[in-house]
Amino acid sequence: MSNAPSDERPDRLQRQLAFLLEADKLKHVKRRTWLLDQSRLENDAEHSWHLALMVLLLDEHAADADFDRLRAMQMVIIHDLVEIDAGDTYAYDAEANLDKADRERRAAERIFGMLPDDQARRFRGLWDEFEQRATPEAKFAAAVDRLQPLLHNFHTGGRAWREHQVHVGPVLERTEPIGEGSPALWRHARALIDAARDRGDLLP
Amino acid sequence: MSNAPSDERPDRLQRQLAFLLEADKLKHVKRRTWLLDQSRLENDAEHSWHLALMVLLLDEHAADADFDRLRAMQMVIIHDLVEIDAGDTYAYDAEANLDKADRERRAAERIFGMLPDDQARRFRGLWDEFEQRATPEAKFAAAVDRLQPLLHNFHTGGRAWREHQVHVGPVLERTEPIGEGSPALWRHARALIDAARDRGDLLP
Repeated sequence: MSNAPSDERPDRLQRQLAFLLEADKLKHVKRRTWLLDQSRLENDAEHSWHLALMVLLLDEHAADADFDRLRAMQMVIIHDLVEIDAGDTYAYDAEANLDKADRERRAAERIFGMLPDDQARRFRGLWDEFEQRATPEAKFAAAVDRLQPLLHNFHTGGRAWREHQVHVGPVLERTEPIGEGSPALWRHARALIDAARDRGDLLP
Repeated sequence: MSNAPSDERPDRLQRQLAFLLEADKLKHVKRRTWLLDQSRLENDAEHSWHLALMVLLLDEHAADADFDRLRAMQMVIIHDLVEIDAGDTYAYDAEANLDKADRERRAAERIFGMLPDDQARRFRGLWDEFEQRATPEAKFAAAVDRLQPLLHNFHTGGRAWREHQVHVGPVLERTEPIGEGSPALWRHARALIDAARDRGDLLP
């Protein structure tokens, strides 16, 4: 930002812009999910956009019809920023998940700490809320976050599941929170998982 | 979607999911903007996510403080979906811009037409509103849409501008609508453009 010009509220806008430029790194964080044409793995920025589209598109299926759409949208937009430092932790990698919470908490402190104080608190609050899955907004945000990779895995013939020899049990455990956010989407997810097991995409 | 299971509202949910899977193609639409580390060009899905983050982060700079954040967010999330069919039209390619409106209108009809009728109308309405830039929400959405590539171009030493031998005049014309959405962001944008011209990144 050394070449950036001054502004009438220089420090505040400069901090916001520095954060925005830092956020660009999310486009380099690779997930274990294949794009539907299987040309490459998805990255976290693309995934976050897809979730925001799901919040907009599937809101009628939420368990709580009156949930705050804007807050759910904000959560899915920022939920993976910590992975700029902490990396994407594969849901079915038990060892990597042991220190995931610690790595992500440190990342949240550094990354949200780049913002003006009021926004640092607000973004951290949104991320904590998402992680805790206690509010209707966080439950719906979590539902779409867990449904989206399931859709991709199912519609690529279970490619990522096959590559990592994933069993049906951990997938059910991982996706069960969809039901708290949306019973209708959970019924669909269950049917996909059953079909994937029957096809042999998931180990029994 | 041939293997997808049934649901209690099968047609509606199936249409929504088919749309979501189609939307995955936005991750393949390349823009002319370089990522900040210059490793590759950005795609439309990543760009749309970055804009959503800007709406969340920079809302205090909007010309109209009371604008509807959710609607602006929805607009930036869906604004580029038409490029799945129409492709990304470079802002500084005069010839390609001649039939851009026609190509994008046909794309909107096909892509939003995949949705249940009420949602097709709603998404099309959001896209039309974004394109027309008449409401405070559309003006702010347009402001971040025009600021984001400017930030990337500036902070990569004007790489895309140099590659396409872009002059300062068309950049000023392209970015001027930032001022309608946010005078503060327009002041910053103007200063970046002046600095880029002084550095020789933009032709006079």
